[in-house]
Amino acid sequence: MKSISTTIWSRPGSTLSAIAIIAGLWLTSAPTYLAGQSSDNGVNSTPFVIGHSASITSDILGEDRPLLIHTPTGYEQSNVSYPVLYLLDGDGHFHHTTGVIQFLAANNRMPDMIVVAIPNTGNRTHDLTPPQTEPDSTRQFPTAGGASKFLQFLTDELQPWVESQYRTAPYNVLIGHSFGGLFITEVLMEDAKAFNAYISISPSLWWDHEQYVEGATSIFEKNPELKGALYMTMASEGGEMLSGGWKMAGILEKHAPDSFRWKWTHMPEEDHGSIPHRSTYDGLEWLFDGWSMPSLFEVALAEDGEGLSRINKHHDELSERFGFPIQTPEALVNQVGYALLGMGRLEHALSAFKQNVENFPNSANVYDSQGDALDAACRLKEARASYARALELGEPSNDSQLDLYKSNVARLTEKISSAEVCVVAGSEM
Amino acid sequence: MKSISTTIWSRPGSTLSAIAIIAGLWLTSAPTYLAGQSSDNGVNSTPFVIGHSASITSDILGEDRPLLIHTPTGYEQSNVSYPVLYLLDGDGHFHHTTGVIQFLAANNRMPDMIVVAIPNTGNRTHDLTPPQTEPDSTRQFPTAGGASKFLQFLTDELQPWVESQYRTAPYNVLIGHSFGGLFITEVLMEDAKAFNAYISISPSLWWDHEQYVEGATSIFEKNPELKGALYMTMASEGGEMLSGGWKMAGILEKHAPDSFRWKWTHMPEEDHGSIPHRSTYDGLEWLFDGWSMPSLFEVALAEDGEGLSRINKHHDELSERFGFPIQTPEALVNQVGYALLGMGRLEHALSAFKQNVENFPNSANVYDSQGDALDAACRLKEARASYARALELGEPSNDSQLDLYKSNVARLTEKISSAEVCVVAGSEM
Repeated sequence: MKSISTTIWSRPGSTLSAIAIIAGLWLTSAPTYLAGQSSDNGVNSTPFVIGHSASITSDILGEDRPLLIHTPTGYEQSNVSYPVLYLLDGDGHFHHTTGVIQFLAANNRMPDMIVVAIPNTGNRTHDLTPPQTEPDSTRQFPTAGGASKFLQFLTDELQPWVESQYRTAPYNVLIGHSFGGLFITEVLMEDAKAFNAYISISPSLWWDHEQYVEGATSIFEKNPELKGALYMTMASEGGEMLSGGWKMAGILEKHAPDSFRWKWTHMPEEDHGSIPHRSTYDGLEWLFDGWSMPSLFEVALAEDGEGLSRINKHHDELSERFGFPIQTPEALVNQVGYALLGMGRLEHALSAFKQNVENFPNSANVYDSQGDALDAACRLKEARASYARALELGEPSNDSQLDLYKSNVARLTEKISSAEVCVVAGSEM
Repeated sequence: MKSISTTIWSRPGSTLSAIAIIAGLWLTSAPTYLAGQSSDNGVNSTPFVIGHSASITSDILGEDRPLLIHTPTGYEQSNVSYPVLYLLDGDGHFHHTTGVIQFLAANNRMPDMIVVAIPNTGNRTHDLTPPQTEPDSTRQFPTAGGASKFLQFLTDELQPWVESQYRTAPYNVLIGHSFGGLFITEVLMEDAKAFNAYISISPSLWWDHEQYVEGATSIFEKNPELKGALYMTMASEGGEMLSGGWKMAGILEKHAPDSFRWKWTHMPEEDHGSIPHRSTYDGLEWLFDGWSMPSLFEVALAEDGEGLSRINKHHDELSERFGFPIQTPEALVNQVGYALLGMGRLEHALSAFKQNVENFPNSANVYDSQGDALDAACRLKEARASYARALELGEPSNDSQLDLYKSNVARLTEKISSAEVCVVAGSEM
């Protein structure tokens, strides 16, 4: 089928008509997180689920650690591997951070990601802070200093566990706020390659009277050719917090190689509590800058029929840049296919749907879409086979479009046995 | 108990020490949406639920309409009534919009809200658009023109149903994007008081070759003293879409009375698909501008002991401004109480906890917190009674802090029977 929701906001004849044709692209990835079908009227029939709790026993920390895990829409039905976002202070930020990712990914601004949120247990201060040298610092935070061990937990226990449980791509992002941002500085100093990118939100760089941040030059002494990315923000905190932030920016400016992308943004209109959301949104947008192809809609429908191969090339370049395989998304190719079909460009439409069938062989919908194009081309037996494959794939998961697939199979069976002559949908459509 | 997560990012001795003391305020409302307690290790143990599906039979529309409903954290355990946000294109925007509300409310930037998301059914174009006059418009959208009926569904069926099912405050917000934004213009023209505030995101004001938007002067002819608020944005769409937007801004500038707040923001760096998130975040922040009291932390701990009454006065003013009763939030007062307790200001702390007990008599935690202060004041029997009340209230819902309440009752029982003399925690703490 075409898509669940479509938005048509422009009109033929305006300068925007080409865009209007496939405007449905924008809302194609409406999440379908309802745990099952609702059959009864009224309230509370089916929960809307965005993740699950999990737990890992850590020998390094000597305790069980709770986790919250979010997988992208359609994860169960796909064969795609996803990059992973690790989120500190996990419980407080799980809902809005996964919401941002769902939204940006649905709009082709970043990849869909698995989110592994790490709630705090007994001693957040211990887990997220490096040791101190100043006597009054030590008095104030007597339990500080567990950051190295916590990092070891992340790299030696949590990451391998996540990779064993989920289809992960080799690209990991770490987000931390406040002491979590301070922790990111420690990760960079100790093991900068532990993650591919970092979003450090109002990091507590006043730590140990700013003695600590001065050691950040070691990041690039250890790794003169470090590849990676760091987005860092600071709110209205001021004082040693802000001067620590400027010190860090100075170190990055002076020592970071070109291969290490970084950006520092002062957001004085935010306070320490409100800064995480905008930092997360802006940080992910910055990190995946260029993810969306410029003039995607015009490119897709280029008259020379090379639109899709240009879009595929863009995704090959993204794969090269980010270091993991990135396929042109199923929903995007599906919409391009329908746009071409609507314009009567049958062969180009069939190529698009064929690409989706090859890349996403577990998806019922790609076969249903291909069936529509084969039907339009009067390749009726192939169309019926494609619809039948959709039905076969959709049945085990009780796919919400099952009735559509069934009716398409029935319709084609009738059409094949009908005496009427099939007329190929042509460019006059 | 104090709070689930606390953030301490500053240090005594710095200019920020007063803030540091109650810095935990920022993360006190970590959402607890886990549907139950997780008892087994591993993946997928407990779903993280942010809402539920529901369904309403509409006589006006002649069909069943699916809904998605989000209630604030702690809704089941509280007696508070909440304002309601109605969300068009509901399925596509449910996750990220509820995430924004959870985040902003947890940071005291807006009230917690019930969200009623309205997914589309068969004919979005019909439901959300007014009739057309231009012949080529009619050809392009032959099914258009159902907006009046859809509005009637919202006001005569959906709102009464929501108010019968949930504890609602009389303050309703409507958010719509694209045709949903166009629909908001229709609501303003037909029945501007149907909602208290509107967020109109890239509205399709090119509708009917901009004939339609010119009728918007009628909004204020019908309601010369209209009270309300409208936040309107436009992305990079350009063309008749943008000129329609400027026309609307011109009408608002010329005709809107002072009692009608409005803001128009052109966001040319966004596209039609990406604009909803920033518009929602910025729009809610603008709508509830002033919700958070300036210098809240300093005010709370004022040495004259009047901090809490000033904060209460601020919330009385908010009630007046928004037209529904707004109590000083439980989590905020709880944190103020603990901050005062930590400073040894026992009587002020007890007043804070007493206020919470009076305002939120169904909350187990307010009694537990009051128990801590009574214990510190050596009012041991009252402390035990307060802990016992927490236990009694927490048991039916299997409150996650049940073990804490139990151990507090046991501890006080022992302390009461002990021979040791109780020493009141004083200002030397």
